[in-house]
Amino acid sequence: MFQAKARADILKEVVNVVSTLVDEAKFSVTTDGLSLKAVDPAHIAMVDLSLSKDAFEEFKADEAEIGLDIDKLSQFLKLARGDDIVDMKHDEDKRRLNIVVGDVTRRMSLIDTTGMSDPKVPNLELPAKLSVKVDDLVQGIRASETVSDHIALIASPDSFEMTCEGDMDQVNWKKAKKDMESLETPSSVRSLFPLEYFSNMLKAVPTGNPVTMYLGNDYPVRVEFKIAGGKGEVRYLLAPRIESGD
Amino acid sequence: MFQAKARADILKEVVNVVSTLVDEAKFSVTTDGLSLKAVDPAHIAMVDLSLSKDAFEEFKADEAEIGLDIDKLSQFLKLARGDDIVDMKHDEDKRRLNIVVGDVTRRMSLIDTTGMSDPKVPNLELPAKLSVKVDDLVQGIRASETVSDHIALIASPDSFEMTCEGDMDQVNWKKAKKDMESLETPSSVRSLFPLEYFSNMLKAVPTGNPVTMYLGNDYPVRVEFKIAGGKGEVRYLLAPRIESGD
Amino acid sequence: MFQAKARADILKEVVNVVSTLVDEAKFSVTTDGLSLKAVDPAHIAMVDLSLSKDAFEEFKADEAEIGLDIDKLSQFLKLARGDDIVDMKHDEDKRRLNIVVGDVTRRMSLIDTTGMSDPKVPNLELPAKLSVKVDDLVQGIRASETVSDHIALIASPDSFEMTCEGDMDQVNWKKAKKDMESLETPSSVRSLFPLEYFSNMLKAVPTGNPVTMYLGNDYPVRVEFKIAGGKGEVRYLLAPRIESGD
Repeated sequence: MFQAKARADILKEVVNVVSTLVDEAKFSVTTDGLSLKAVDPAHIAMVDLSLSKDAFEEFKADEAEIGLDIDKLSQFLKLARGDDIVDMKHDEDKRRLNIVVGDVTRRMSLIDTTGMSDPKVPNLELPAKLSVKVDDLVQGIRASETVSDHIALIASPDSFEMTCEGDMDQVNWKKAKKDMESLETPSSVRSLFPLEYFSNMLKAVPTGNPVTMYLGNDYPVRVEFKIAGGKGEVRYLLAPRIESGD
Repeated sequence: MFQAKARADILKEVVNVVSTLVDEAKFSVTTDGLSLKAVDPAHIAMVDLSLSKDAFEEFKADEAEIGLDIDKLSQFLKLARGDDIVDMKHDEDKRRLNIVVGDVTRRMSLIDTTGMSDPKVPNLELPAKLSVKVDDLVQGIRASETVSDHIALIASPDSFEMTCEGDMDQVNWKKAKKDMESLETPSSVRSLFPLEYFSNMLKAVPTGNPVTMYLGNDYPVRVEFKIAGGKGEVRYLLAPRIESGD
Repeated sequence: MFQAKARADILKEVVNVVSTLVDEAKFSVTTDGLSLKAVDPAHIAMVDLSLSKDAFEEFKADEAEIGLDIDKLSQFLKLARGDDIVDMKHDEDKRRLNIVVGDVTRRMSLIDTTGMSDPKVPNLELPAKLSVKVDDLVQGIRASETVSDHIALIASPDSFEMTCEGDMDQVNWKKAKKDMESLETPSSVRSLFPLEYFSNMLKAVPTGNPVTMYLGNDYPVRVEFKIAGGKGEVRYLLAPRIESGD
């Protein structure tokens, strides 16, 4: 059983996070809220999202698995303003999710989740931890997009850098520790990532929010941030590209 | 003879109405105003528009027929702001309409109207009559567009519904009589329509205006609304799709 | 040596002017400021731009030639708001221009200028001189774009006209001398120009500014205007199309 009401903007945040990696997803519902783990088709990135029942206006549920076409959900939510209340109800007999916004009801066929396994989130030791406002990163990422497909993240004891090397040009973004929310690393670490994945992950962060990143040397990056005004949490993992030595 | 001045936004309303169905149209001018009857090339829909001379700032005319390329007129009006005055003059010798906005004059060759017959508006007995704000319908129509190419309109004594059945999903929009401007029907009636035509017709309704609809069982729908702040009237007719039985 | 700081909106004005004609350009730097002369690949138009050192927040330079990819510069400037300060530094050893906006540095490889000769600006006797607000011209040009690829500019002692003749339609824009900033011509002159070039040139004029034009009979037009709040000057030359007689 799953029956809940939520503000449209909170559901849009969830859709933004999930749609960066997958078109279809299995949401796990418990009495405490909703969660999702998914890996993108190329197995380069993973998302682990949880949304507390406190993020909802109303929430009644026991254990359930709900397979959704994220694109259809996104289309439907575009019809709603941020403060519209979205009413959701799992129709187990007809295998549907019925969603109501205002005068409109959409009865959405669920996706079969039998083949969808739960990805296991690896437990990584990442020595560097830093926190920075997402808005500060955006200019550096947009400047990089015109130069290369990859971006290097570099944490050192007193600064955090993103650099991007093209054939002709180079883009560098740098922030001193004193201008960041926080930065802790025992030594300098550097890893290279596919820029498009990294950029899409940061686009899913609500504006004005801080992002926490965990980095190592040629290791995945873990990107963590809050959604739903603190009542939801997102953890992305992104695999590194191994640099061909320099 | 036809010589008139009108606010650009009123002419834009006329163009919006006509361009949903045809690219070229014959306007009939009399001493009382302007009117137009047209059928779309697929013979699925018809428009019957009249604009009183009171909708114009200035209006001098006797009987005339003016064939216009609606797309060209629309392009030209896009250069004008809503409150700009558009000056029109029929040059009978050169078979042109000369249109002036600000410092710009466009001399537009007229279309030959000899082959363009006047469609006859059928006199239909449609038992259900209802009226609803156009803005209320928009969400239901937009939600339907992602699900199917057809939309069913259903009037019953205490509600009006639009439903759309896709292969997987279903969209339903419903309004109780008490939340509508008006609703009168002796019994429940239902007809199915091509969604794109219906959607385009409603896009031509000025925002905030009520729309009156006349419905039957597997019968055309008549959609009526005012333009030009009440000084013009539009009547659309849209043919039904016969449902393959249910 | 070249090292300078400028507001982003001033550099955007420069980029708008140059990008109408060329993708790559050679800027000449002196102790007094910056200048550029360029001809478009089809040899139909020429631009002659100069920007005083007073247009910069800081300016330190001796003689230098800097070859830039205008498109890359434009991309980078899009990341900046109008009042952001852009810091530029010529790295002669690495043949780069290093540009900083906020936390982002782009190191941009320079283009080889050895093959880029300085076009010679011809000294033309153009009898008509007129000045008009750029915003007044825009409606006439936009109306013309739907009618033909060419536009005739006609100056007579008491008015300035732009006309455009299509197969079916005609567009005319006309301004009386008394409604213009200025107009002086000993006789009526008329020349025909490729509309797209003329339109793009006027799009590069900062809104609200007057444009001065010099015209002859089947002769090039010279279009002059200020940029950078008067601290820069632009001169465009556009070759005429010879009319096939009328």
